Amino acid sequence: MADGVLTFNAGSSSLKFALFTHRGEALRPLFHGQLEDLSEDPRFTVDDAAGQRIVDQDLGQLRPGAWTHEEALAHLLHWIDGHDDNLSLTAIGHRVVHGGEAFAAPVRVDAAVLDAIEALTELAPLHQPASIAPVRAIAALRPDLLQVACFDTAFHSTLPPVERLFALGADLRAHGVRRFGFHGLSYEYIAGELPACLGPLADGRVIIAHLGNGASMCALHGRRSRATTMGFTALDGLVMGTRCGTIDPGAVLHLLRHAGLDAATLERKLYRESGLLGVSGLSHDMRTLLASDAPAAALAVELYCHRIAREVGALAAAIGGVDAMVFTAGVGENAAPVRARVLESLDWMGFRLDAIANARGNGCITDPGGSAQAFVIRTNEDAVVARHALELALGKA
Amino acid sequence: MADGVLTFNAGSSSLKFALFTHRGEALRPLFHGQLEDLSEDPRFTVDDAAGQRIVDQDLGQLRPGAWTHEEALAHLLHWIDGHDDNLSLTAIGHRVVHGGEAFAAPVRVDAAVLDAIEALTELAPLHQPASIAPVRAIAALRPDLLQVACFDTAFHSTLPPVERLFALGADLRAHGVRRFGFHGLSYEYIAGELPACLGPLADGRVIIAHLGNGASMCALHGRRSRATTMGFTALDGLVMGTRCGTIDPGAVLHLLRHAGLDAATLERKLYRESGLLGVSGLSHDMRTLLASDAPAAALAVELYCHRIAREVGALAAAIGGVDAMVFTAGVGENAAPVRARVLESLDWMGFRLDAIANARGNGCITDPGGSAQAFVIRTNEDAVVARHALELALGKA
Repeated sequence: MADGVLTFNAGSSSLKFALFTHRGEALRPLFHGQLEDLSEDPRFTVDDAAGQRIVDQDLGQLRPGAWTHEEALAHLLHWIDGHDDNLSLTAIGHRVVHGGEAFAAPVRVDAAVLDAIEALTELAPLHQPASIAPVRAIAALRPDLLQVACFDTAFHSTLPPVERLFALGADLRAHGVRRFGFHGLSYEYIAGELPACLGPLADGRVIIAHLGNGASMCALHGRRSRATTMGFTALDGLVMGTRCGTIDPGAVLHLLRHAGLDAATLERKLYRESGLLGVSGLSHDMRTLLASDAPAAALAVELYCHRIAREVGALAAAIGGVDAMVFTAGVGENAAPVRARVLESLDWMGFRLDAIANARGNGCITDPGGSAQAFVIRTNEDAVVARHALELALGKA
Repeated sequence: MADGVLTFNAGSSSLKFALFTHRGEALRPLFHGQLEDLSEDPRFTVDDAAGQRIVDQDLGQLRPGAWTHEEALAHLLHWIDGHDDNLSLTAIGHRVVHGGEAFAAPVRVDAAVLDAIEALTELAPLHQPASIAPVRAIAALRPDLLQVACFDTAFHSTLPPVERLFALGADLRAHGVRRFGFHGLSYEYIAGELPACLGPLADGRVIIAHLGNGASMCALHGRRSRATTMGFTALDGLVMGTRCGTIDPGAVLHLLRHAGLDAATLERKLYRESGLLGVSGLSHDMRTLLASDAPAAALAVELYCHRIAREVGALAAAIGGVDAMVFTAGVGENAAPVRARVLESLDWMGFRLDAIANARGNGCITDPGGSAQAFVIRTNEDAVVARHALELALGKA
């Protein structure tokens, strides 16, 4: 009989999962895959640890119409049972976007915890409901299974007061408005990799750029979060695929007061129709924009890189300089031209791009003659979630 | 017969003026003063060029009740005539907060220009009406007098596209939302002083911190604006006396959707009850906060300084580093502890505070052994406005 940990990472239209086996505390990845497009064109795919696709199933052919989370997860659990009837699940771990003030560490989910997580929905209106759906579905399907929630905000519990605080009056701050920061599970994974990848720089001033569909940066000192670009919500900071990042709060008020938009419509536009998509008018996808010769695509890429460089400067100022920088997540790991532009514009901070290493895109991508070094490290939020779930299951956390 | 130029700098509750004489293009300050608190407790004060108060008049004793701008300005013009009946006004210059897309340089005011300036009110709802009131009043009182509008946005017409652009879709950008930047008349004055004060550094990478009641920073290269912290409105960027500066746009939406505030109320709170006042709960005035031993006052000061340092990093990244920094305006010129904290936290950028020079608060305040130098330079927006007004009057611009 083998033991397993299953992890979930829920997006707005897809649910990614990963399955690990463990012997004691040692985890080994077995499979990962996703349940996607459940409401329109449901699909179930699984890749093995080597990246080979072993399942690619059109769920609409099994049963037409939209699938609920519960139906899709029942299908997944059934597939896992059938694939390896020797496997017994020790725990299920979930990536949850917002932990608010209450959750500064992973937590075992019970009914009260689930209600508390759900109460945070207004802090992450477009992300939190997706995080909660699979937790509720598993609780209904397999009430016996230990579920653990891991929060993207928790890694930033070490932010100092001046980084948490927005300059608002007490009445507005009483509504919970402060900087939380996100992508903490990714930063936690990278922080764990720093000693092996960076050697003696690991405990220095390190800025991590998590550049995925959502994007943020985190400044670490002693491998703890000391500053970050995302704020109260996941809308703040860098330019993202479809999110605007930081804009003048006066611009938000102006659009509400003079452009005939209500807050819900504007929120949707700022989350879904802005960022790279909004500026380029073409795509949210960096690969498409880098391949395009449209001037608006080039401008979107230039703005994206410029804003990363600007935030590197701001984060460096928050921690008193920078020794090293790490690029991670989809764009960070794969878009060599983005890394090149950012680092070339940061020559003044001591980064000397190594073009050949950057094209290879793994490990150190700067010349060691510079005073600051940059690295590409692949992130793995699933591994962090699985480790936390297992620790709680084994009573180690 | 002597020639004169009168300038106005209108705030929300006070109207500052300055009178210059000129011989050809050479201007010399004569008097400056203000008409303040017109609606409650109207007062008229004048200081001579040496700073000696020569008029301090309670207008309520002349005629009780609120005074209109037109009445107050008639009183001022009458006083000028009576004080020196040999003086003939060549032109009147006005500081106007917002020039929008249309005004990238000072302009002679006629009815069409005045309408165009008034149409920009929604871009600066709390500042633009005050700028316009004295223009209209003078046009009614002395229609013969040449009036010139000088815009706080105009100096930033050299911002590159990536600094003007917010990452919004075309539909939202079509409402005019872009970065304008403000305090341009102050930056223009300082840019003019740089060669004399900074020598060979003047044309390098210079960051100016205009720290008044409103506060912003500007990064110059070749003495032109290349990046700035204020955006579409004067709410953006640094922490100010009562304004919040940059906050997560998602926080604005959250407060509107979940705190029961409408946009007009929230706008007022963000402009009038935030910043140093909001965080300290005590005062918008840096002098009061520095003198206080309340923890919330100390936190407000710490946040204020931290955000300046963060923005120095961001602006430096936008222009490829920093050679020099200039502190100006009320807090910048007078609050040595603020300058000390900012520069000490920017040690990593090459600033080495000279504590004795900083306490003196004029000229260079860093040790020349550092790789970057900081200066205190007194700003003089009136002189810039007077020069522009005179140039247009003499047909030189």
